[in-house]
Amino acid sequence: MLAGMDNLTITVGDVTRTLPTVRVGNLGRVPLVEFIGDSELTKAAAQAMLPLIPDGTELLLSVVTNALPLVHELSDRSGLPYVVARKKRRTYMQDPLIQQVPSMTLGVGETLWLDGPHAERLRGKQVAVVQDVVASGGTAQALSRLVDRAGGQVSGYLAAFKQGETELPLHYLQDLPRRL
Amino acid sequence: MLAGMDNLTITVGDVTRTLPTVRVGNLGRVPLVEFIGDSELTKAAAQAMLPLIPDGTELLLSVVTNALPLVHELSDRSGLPYVVARKKRRTYMQDPLIQQVPSMTLGVGETLWLDGPHAERLRGKQVAVVQDVVASGGTAQALSRLVDRAGGQVSGYLAAFKQGETELPLHYLQDLPRRL
Repeated sequence: MLAGMDNLTITVGDVTRTLPTVRVGNLGRVPLVEFIGDSELTKAAAQAMLPLIPDGTELLLSVVTNALPLVHELSDRSGLPYVVARKKRRTYMQDPLIQQVPSMTLGVGETLWLDGPHAERLRGKQVAVVQDVVASGGTAQALSRLVDRAGGQVSGYLAAFKQGETELPLHYLQDLPRRL
Repeated sequence: MLAGMDNLTITVGDVTRTLPTVRVGNLGRVPLVEFIGDSELTKAAAQAMLPLIPDGTELLLSVVTNALPLVHELSDRSGLPYVVARKKRRTYMQDPLIQQVPSMTLGVGETLWLDGPHAERLRGKQVAVVQDVVASGGTAQALSRLVDRAGGQVSGYLAAFKQGETELPLHYLQDLPRRL
C-alpha cells in the first residue's frame, strides 16, 4: 500500500492543496477533492468560478452533497439564488420531480429528487448547472432534464474540476486525472 | 388541506422568512427550516451564532446535509476549521469511526460515519458540535461520542433552532414549535 505517495497538488487562486488519493476498486489511485470541511478552498473555487457563469443566468442548480458549500458560496458571491436537488426522497417533499441519472455502468443508477416548491423557482428562468466535479456528465444531464421539466432553460454547465471525459460543453477551472 | 395557512414567520438578524409547514404523519403541520438554497438566511444565522461559540473552541463538527452551508459559513466567519460526519459510508473512507444515533422511537436508527483522516483532526481539540436544528438531541449525542472516540473534547453544542425538548445544554438562536 503506497498511501501518501504520488499525491497531486492543485492551486486555485491563492489556495494550494495536496489532494489525498484513494484506491477505488481496480482503477488504481484516484485523487479526491473535498470542499466539505475546507472553507478556504471553497471560497477560492467560488471566486474563480464567478467569470464562468454565463451571461443572462438567473439561478444556479446543483445537487447534494459535496457541492453544497461551493454552490452556497457561488450564490453568495454572484448574487444569484440557488436550488439543490436531493438524492433521496425527503418526507416533507411536495410533488417532487424525480429524475434518473443515466448510469455509465450496468449498476444501479442514482435518482434525483427536486421538491415541488423548488422546481417552481426554475420556471421560465435561465439556469446554470453547478457541480464540484464532473466525470462522465451523467449527473449534469439529469440536472439538465430537471431544468427542462421545470420549465426553465439551461444557460450552461459549471464545475470546479473535470475528472474524465465528457461531451458536455463544460466551463471548469482545472482538469483532474482520473487516476494516478 | 390547509397548506399555506398558519405559517410561521421567523427573523434572524435582518432576514425574515415565512417557513413552509409540512404535514408529517399524524403529528400535524411542522414548520420547516431550509438553509440549503437560501444563502441570505444562512449568512444571517451564522453571523448570529458567532457569539454562541464557546471560548477556547478550536474546531467545529457537524453532520450532512442540511447544516452544510451553515457550518461552512460559520467556519468562514469564525476562522475555525470544520469537519463533517456523513450519514453513509463513502467508498473513499479510510478507517472511519462508525456511530449509531440513539433513536427516540423503535424505528431504524441512523448511523454516522467519520472518515479516519477527519477524525484525526479532532484529536486533542476543543470541539463545538454545530447543527441547524436540534430536536431530541440524539444526533448531537452521537456527534459528541465521535468527538470522545476521536480523542477530542466537546466545548459546547450550537444550533440555529431548537425544535422540541432536549436535555442538551444547547446554545441556540430561537425556539421553533414542533407543530402548528
